[in-house]
Amino acid sequence: MTTSALPALSDIEDRTIPGVLRIENSDREATAPIIMDRLRSVYPHDQIFGMFCPVQDYIAVPPRELYAYLADPRSLEEWSYGMRGFAETDQPGLWVAADRLVPDTEIYIRTVANPDAMTVDYHCAWDQGEHLWMVYLMRVIDAQVVLNKPGSVVTWINCHHPFYDENPYPETAPPGREEWVGDLWEMFSAGHKLELGNLKAIAEYRASHGLPITPDWMR
Amino acid sequence: MTTSALPALSDIEDRTIPGVLRIENSDREATAPIIMDRLRSVYPHDQIFGMFCPVQDYIAVPPRELYAYLADPRSLEEWSYGMRGFAETDQPGLWVAADRLVPDTEIYIRTVANPDAMTVDYHCAWDQGEHLWMVYLMRVIDAQVVLNKPGSVVTWINCHHPFYDENPYPETAPPGREEWVGDLWEMFSAGHKLELGNLKAIAEYRASHGLPITPDWMR
Repeated sequence: MTTSALPALSDIEDRTIPGVLRIENSDREATAPIIMDRLRSVYPHDQIFGMFCPVQDYIAVPPRELYAYLADPRSLEEWSYGMRGFAETDQPGLWVAADRLVPDTEIYIRTVANPDAMTVDYHCAWDQGEHLWMVYLMRVIDAQVVLNKPGSVVTWINCHHPFYDENPYPETAPPGREEWVGDLWEMFSAGHKLELGNLKAIAEYRASHGLPITPDWMR
Repeated sequence: MTTSALPALSDIEDRTIPGVLRIENSDREATAPIIMDRLRSVYPHDQIFGMFCPVQDYIAVPPRELYAYLADPRSLEEWSYGMRGFAETDQPGLWVAADRLVPDTEIYIRTVANPDAMTVDYHCAWDQGEHLWMVYLMRVIDAQVVLNKPGSVVTWINCHHPFYDENPYPETAPPGREEWVGDLWEMFSAGHKLELGNLKAIAEYRASHGLPITPDWMR
């Protein structure tokens, strides 16, 4: 090992920023108890799923095929719990479906997918398609690279947008609807795991039965 | 709402796959107790951080600037706990540094970044640069989109690659080293949060002091 340290933080006075723990100012002996103090045998729900809602799973399906399936918003007609009747609006790329979780509720969706990074972001909103603030950030990863076996890892995260706490566009809601999507935030972790389980079961069923992951009706 | 359901799962016999819960075969009344049963007031460490290690945070820095900083592996010289002395090897894009967590240990790193998706993947390994199996998957997200405020959300996930459990290339380890990187997997959640906290503190310090996020020495 012949490399020498680079001028890290050389633009900062004394190279010191409060709260930064680096081996130079906090050696391993000093840092170990800090780390141990932050580990818990159990973590409260809100600490893990309060501000962000990350779920992930391994799916035994080739990553390219799984990505292509997810990148079509109509895949949600299959693996989501209750989004049904996807139809493209008169704005290209903006889709609408019924969110059958609640009566008379439309969900608008625009998919932003990147084939190189294999990210699939569903930008959604209940009731209106002008401001798509509910964002489902997903990514397909080649499991060969990260788990040393064929298949895919799928990551999915939602962020706790303040509109979950209060509907910013109440005038677009159907009359008399009592529920708001954000009332369900506390259940998102379990609900999203259920839906990720659907995705896994559907995709693995097709892969193991020689069926194309993206079914003919979506082509 | 005039859309009608699409032919979901029409390639599957009886449109039925074991384990798939959709509103058609499990209505909200039937599904609610399943969801509630999967929610907990607390979750064991291994359930949350055993197979995957997701951490994330909000950082009050413009996303494009934060992405550009992260996309340069030398940023780790600053915000990582102990990777120091980054130098490019004779293979373009493959860097080596000392992982000062343990004596005499080199870490090899190749960064795969996508400016459109703002993903930054650090493909790493201790001791050798031929098989980069430790993969740090990061992503910068525009907080305006997902949290309705300026700044960035950074997500970071590692997958529990089997090599964490057993060093596949022991012949490349320095003689006498007793520790293996995978011995630390149980502490990754706290360790990565510590490092993400470093990233946040450094980037926010620069942003709030009018300094460029990527310092001159990295340019």
